[in-house]
Amino acid sequence: MTAQRIITLTTDFGLTDHYVGTMKGVITTINPLARIVDITNSVQSFDVLDGAMAISQAYQYFPPDTLHMVIVDPGVGGPRRPIIAVVGQHCFVAPDNGVLSLVYEREERVAVRHISASHYFRQPVSSTFHGRDVFAPVAGYISKGVEIAKFGEEITDYVRFAAPRPRAAGPNTWKGVVLKVDKFGNLLTNFTANDIPQLFLEAPPAFKLTVGKAEVMQIQSSYSQGAQGEILAIIGSAGFLEICTNRGSASRLAGAEKGSEVSVVLAG
Amino acid sequence: MTAQRIITLTTDFGLTDHYVGTMKGVITTINPLARIVDITNSVQSFDVLDGAMAISQAYQYFPPDTLHMVIVDPGVGGPRRPIIAVVGQHCFVAPDNGVLSLVYEREERVAVRHISASHYFRQPVSSTFHGRDVFAPVAGYISKGVEIAKFGEEITDYVRFAAPRPRAAGPNTWKGVVLKVDKFGNLLTNFTANDIPQLFLEAPPAFKLTVGKAEVMQIQSSYSQGAQGEILAIIGSAGFLEICTNRGSASRLAGAEKGSEVSVVLAG
Amino acid sequence: MTAQRIITLTTDFGLTDHYVGTMKGVITTINPLARIVDITNSVQSFDVLDGAMAISQAYQYFPPDTLHMVIVDPGVGGPRRPIIAVVGQHCFVAPDNGVLSLVYEREERVAVRHISASHYFRQPVSSTFHGRDVFAPVAGYISKGVEIAKFGEEITDYVRFAAPRPRAAGPNTWKGVVLKVDKFGNLLTNFTANDIPQLFLEAPPAFKLTVGKAEVMQIQSSYSQGAQGEILAIIGSAGFLEICTNRGSASRLAGAEKGSEVSVVLAG
Repeated sequence: MTAQRIITLTTDFGLTDHYVGTMKGVITTINPLARIVDITNSVQSFDVLDGAMAISQAYQYFPPDTLHMVIVDPGVGGPRRPIIAVVGQHCFVAPDNGVLSLVYEREERVAVRHISASHYFRQPVSSTFHGRDVFAPVAGYISKGVEIAKFGEEITDYVRFAAPRPRAAGPNTWKGVVLKVDKFGNLLTNFTANDIPQLFLEAPPAFKLTVGKAEVMQIQSSYSQGAQGEILAIIGSAGFLEICTNRGSASRLAGAEKGSEVSVVLAG
Repeated sequence: MTAQRIITLTTDFGLTDHYVGTMKGVITTINPLARIVDITNSVQSFDVLDGAMAISQAYQYFPPDTLHMVIVDPGVGGPRRPIIAVVGQHCFVAPDNGVLSLVYEREERVAVRHISASHYFRQPVSSTFHGRDVFAPVAGYISKGVEIAKFGEEITDYVRFAAPRPRAAGPNTWKGVVLKVDKFGNLLTNFTANDIPQLFLEAPPAFKLTVGKAEVMQIQSSYSQGAQGEILAIIGSAGFLEICTNRGSASRLAGAEKGSEVSVVLAG
Repeated sequence: MTAQRIITLTTDFGLTDHYVGTMKGVITTINPLARIVDITNSVQSFDVLDGAMAISQAYQYFPPDTLHMVIVDPGVGGPRRPIIAVVGQHCFVAPDNGVLSLVYEREERVAVRHISASHYFRQPVSSTFHGRDVFAPVAGYISKGVEIAKFGEEITDYVRFAAPRPRAAGPNTWKGVVLKVDKFGNLLTNFTANDIPQLFLEAPPAFKLTVGKAEVMQIQSSYSQGAQGEILAIIGSAGFLEICTNRGSASRLAGAEKGSEVSVVLAG
């Protein structure tokens, strides 16, 4: 049963090259029974925060003991360490560049090891594709039941960063940012319901949210409450304020994209 | 054996976000043995007809008793119902917005239930991601053997629409439409061999098919019969008349796209 | 155990249509236990060399006895033959158009059969989708244990081509080409370390590599050795010289793409 362990993939390797397939080959050669599931392989190239968001929003929906490979690794071949992290009930294999930061944030129990047992690696180890030569073999052996203590020592100085948070920019003004534009053109901001709780009262005060050229004055509860071409704000499925529109791309309508500023002003 | 049931996915969730991975996590948590197969997750955003075409062309190639999730759901969070449909030898889980219309058309036996047993849902149910909170858990439990009668009552007023059909526009003239442009740039029209049977005789009458700036005067039987840059008409693998070219994009050559008019005029 | 055989897919069918899902349905109907793994379904449309590169770089990472489907098939419906090739320890199902050329190159043992036993095909066989009607059923039956001799006679005149090789263009000058731009914008050239061994000595002579508007004068060993915006040359994970940049797209920076000329001039 251990050998049938689920291994998920969250990478920026894309789908136009052989990279993801090759990693699956390496895993499968070591453990033919592993059950590999893609979370996404289309993280924006080199974008550690984008990878951090993807894995942090998906991992908790998998069964306890799932093994998650998170390979967004612009520093491959340089000094950054490969790590195994046991976080809550899940296990992660990743480069130590902060890509697990938003997972660490969500859980009490975090134990991280520096993978140093190079006899588990594919030899020779390339300097450009540790997904194939380091992370896939390690994941394969973990899924077969090799104890994680065998891969290296525990460390406490692993890299973690905080996601950008909204900030107060005046007594009734907050500034945040669009963290991601999803496939539908929804703008995922970094505001949560906790940042401006007044906004989510039964009878909220008047407010104006601005992003790109769009202005929103009401929080709705579903996409379908908007008229065609109307821009809406809702709390999305991951708990973040989302700017969207009914059956269309808010990104296109608002002229806003990843990194665009989002400001909220409450009526005095 | 039941627990190893195949579950297919046809969605517009795309591959750049965590959505599809998250749904697979939910299913796998409920039924670790489910075998999940993607049909496509790149249905055009919000496009129920595009989703209807994808599932109607693929489902019958799967084994009897396959469970198909079809989540193109622009009305999520609104009043549209979630449904389970047993159609022919296959089972479907989908929003009741007509996305199964072209499947219903192909089979004699159609039995549809309104999913109302909310104790099978993930709680709290978000208003934007029923793929995760409603459809994935229901599919997971069905695949584990929960009887579909337990999910809700049978209904007969489920939504169905007809795909746009070609129409006679004169004694020897028909007008149709490009329903889809595929990855190769082939133009999939809504003409079938039944619409203008004369065209498919051993010795068909002279005719002229026009789409965009392209004119075609012969039906061929394979892509490779055309010269480089020549636009061809053939009956494609799903039974529809297809405008294509040998090793190139008919869409680009003809300057035609989804929604473009296709006219056929037979010689008097 | 045989029935649980791994079947890989390398195709140009893309992910926006039902084609790949439909093939998986056909395979699964014949052999419900087959384990299907995508290498890539985003080979450039009709591009046999692009498909040849993808499979030749990935297959050897899969377990012995893996069955690889390689369907880049612009001649579908024409006279090209469907083949089964046993190459080294792997088995391949493909059209006989040279898409396995770079696999043949890597192995001593090559045995190719012309698939002619049409009773294994889906009937009627379309003229446009042999992936569904010919290759998927054949792969399904092979994975269930049908002996490959049953599918047709051995042939020796199968199609093979050589990938374009760099050429000497003067006493100290070589010309090569960009074979592929990967998802990161790395330019994969056709130079290997064997083509200009001097370049890879501990103390190489001075040289200038030119591609597009970029000039490179040093071979590095990892992406992270470059400054932001600097263009690097490294030996990539498949053994080819790769033009890249630290956390960015070399293709964009150099203004170079697939087919661009790469020249290397050594100092006299």
